Amino acid sequence: MATSSDNIFLSLTAPGVAGLTPYQPGKPIETLEREYGVSNAIKLASNENPLGPSPRALEALARVRADLARYPDGAAFSLKTALARHLDLTPEQFIIGNGSNEILELVTRAFVTPENEVIFSEHAFAVYAIMTQAVGSRARVARALEYGHDLDAMAALVNDRTRLVFVANPNNPTGTLLDAASLENFLEGVPAHVLVVLDEAYFEYVTAADHPDGTRWLARFPNLLVARTFSKIYGLAGLRVGYAMGNPQLISLLERVRQPFNVNAAALSAAEAALEDDTHLQRSRELNTQGMAQILDGIRKLNLSALPSAGNFLAIDLGQTAAPIYEGLLRQGVIVRPVANYGMPDFLRVTIGLPDENARFLRALEQVLSHHNPHELQGVNA
Amino acid sequence: MATSSDNIFLSLTAPGVAGLTPYQPGKPIETLEREYGVSNAIKLASNENPLGPSPRALEALARVRADLARYPDGAAFSLKTALARHLDLTPEQFIIGNGSNEILELVTRAFVTPENEVIFSEHAFAVYAIMTQAVGSRARVARALEYGHDLDAMAALVNDRTRLVFVANPNNPTGTLLDAASLENFLEGVPAHVLVVLDEAYFEYVTAADHPDGTRWLARFPNLLVARTFSKIYGLAGLRVGYAMGNPQLISLLERVRQPFNVNAAALSAAEAALEDDTHLQRSRELNTQGMAQILDGIRKLNLSALPSAGNFLAIDLGQTAAPIYEGLLRQGVIVRPVANYGMPDFLRVTIGLPDENARFLRALEQVLSHHNPHELQGVNA
Repeated sequence: MATSSDNIFLSLTAPGVAGLTPYQPGKPIETLEREYGVSNAIKLASNENPLGPSPRALEALARVRADLARYPDGAAFSLKTALARHLDLTPEQFIIGNGSNEILELVTRAFVTPENEVIFSEHAFAVYAIMTQAVGSRARVARALEYGHDLDAMAALVNDRTRLVFVANPNNPTGTLLDAASLENFLEGVPAHVLVVLDEAYFEYVTAADHPDGTRWLARFPNLLVARTFSKIYGLAGLRVGYAMGNPQLISLLERVRQPFNVNAAALSAAEAALEDDTHLQRSRELNTQGMAQILDGIRKLNLSALPSAGNFLAIDLGQTAAPIYEGLLRQGVIVRPVANYGMPDFLRVTIGLPDENARFLRALEQVLSHHNPHELQGVNA
Repeated sequence: MATSSDNIFLSLTAPGVAGLTPYQPGKPIETLEREYGVSNAIKLASNENPLGPSPRALEALARVRADLARYPDGAAFSLKTALARHLDLTPEQFIIGNGSNEILELVTRAFVTPENEVIFSEHAFAVYAIMTQAVGSRARVARALEYGHDLDAMAALVNDRTRLVFVANPNNPTGTLLDAASLENFLEGVPAHVLVVLDEAYFEYVTAADHPDGTRWLARFPNLLVARTFSKIYGLAGLRVGYAMGNPQLISLLERVRQPFNVNAAALSAAEAALEDDTHLQRSRELNTQGMAQILDGIRKLNLSALPSAGNFLAIDLGQTAAPIYEGLLRQGVIVRPVANYGMPDFLRVTIGLPDENARFLRALEQVLSHHNPHELQGVNA
């Protein structure tokens, strides 16, 4: 097979494109079943809500079906109005994206050039590095502190060329959470020419007493953009809708690089309906708390530990190279997420699922580990 | 209100962003009814299929509902396989976009820099100019020939800096169609360092005997990309799904700049199902042929003419400034599309609707024109 460097079009690409490595998504269940010949597989790999979408969102979808031949409302008037009411902001403070992933891309495309630098943390969400590379910009990666963001180290990397800082709270794939005081202190130190994207994709899962909520700083820091999503606790990953909140002037520039119909009509309707369903949100959060306890308890019995997580997933430290364990789990029909590409080759990230799914993961893990005892392997190799 | 130049973030933007003017979509029905206080409005403004989606697409949607909490298959394995079978190509020749609009954007972002030039025709789809501006590149606009593409004039603009040529066939908003021999001759003359995007958004509406089909040249011209969409005859504009076909090496580079989950799960399922419904396609085409005859007949009685159109819309020459006529139609609850921003200030573009909608448009037009007779106005001013 031809390698990428043989590509006759490579010399024609814009800066950054030649060096791009696409994001590796979790393996879809259908792909696993096709490739491994297993059935009844479960997927705990993409931090999706195991309860599914809110029933209200599904009702809204049924209503929108006949109108699907129409272009969606590109201005997302209704969803922005609902979000503004829900979060006590104004519609002009919102931009709606094809997932919050698109928001990250819009910020980078609107503001970052090959002359700029972008700061993010080691072990942070992979898309930050991809977006930075895609516009040919230089990534400055701050060393992590106990697998979480070291805000002092990140602040120390700011210079005249810095245009953007990505902060994930909670962070994916580690689950680490920054407290409100640290974040506020960090924002105070960032100069006005540097935009800060606070990625709160897992915000609604956070149960910490000191719940750090980026929206409280929007009025004070015009260079702050807070991104959230309907893909996680709202259970609408399949429909692609996220949003960001910021200064209306900042938002208006992001709107310029957005495609006119970037978010589909089904997503707009379902998201608006989902926003009103507090019961579903609460049930999802409770299920997550219980499931996390279930998995933590289970791995403790296997003498394993996980990073403390504020999200709907756990980064489990296997104390050995995780790749063969990941493969073994796949063969048992259990899909989790390897995170070697996050600089965490000994970890696997598992999404909190339904109680049965969590139990099945734990049983499969126990079984696979019994065949992959690092000491036994050492013995074989010796 | 603050003007755009007061924007404190404007100086931080990437090249091109400051000069961007967002695409002006057709006015949504809800917006018209909100702003003008009319009810029962009809929209013939966005070249949507008045029959709606295929019933098969709607059935597929109903099946996908429970899975919407899962991320979509970013590789679009199933839809690419279905498209390849349908069009007698291979899955590696396809990229799926969030509407074909996104395809146009991906090509531009992957290949065009501020050092390049992009060629397109006068009166061509507005998005070509927006995409070119968004990456800070220079647009070279070829003069049109009887409102259609002048391929010789376009070829004459090719130079060492040219990276991309957009050709729309049929073109929107004019409806003009290039024949196969002219297109082939043009492709033969384009050097290998220049990519040609043949935008066939309205391909399935074309009934011309010599049906120019871009896919026939894919094997011969590796620098050719043919874009199509499910937003027009397939009636799925609300779900956002389009695709492009090209050399697998070219496609693989576009895949690098694509977001991992750019197309939603509902769109993937509905599109695949819609592809199999030839009956719906045929009904839609027949309805369009009849509706176009109905409108052409109606405007002839008003002493008006339209450009010959191969699409599902007509550009009607009003022989006077169209803006007040457009406003008058809005007040009657009829939304069509003004095209002054396409350099056609005397035209209105009307989408072929259902027979009742076409009739209502013709009645409204007659009534509005009776109050806007240019000769009468001249008399008043004299």
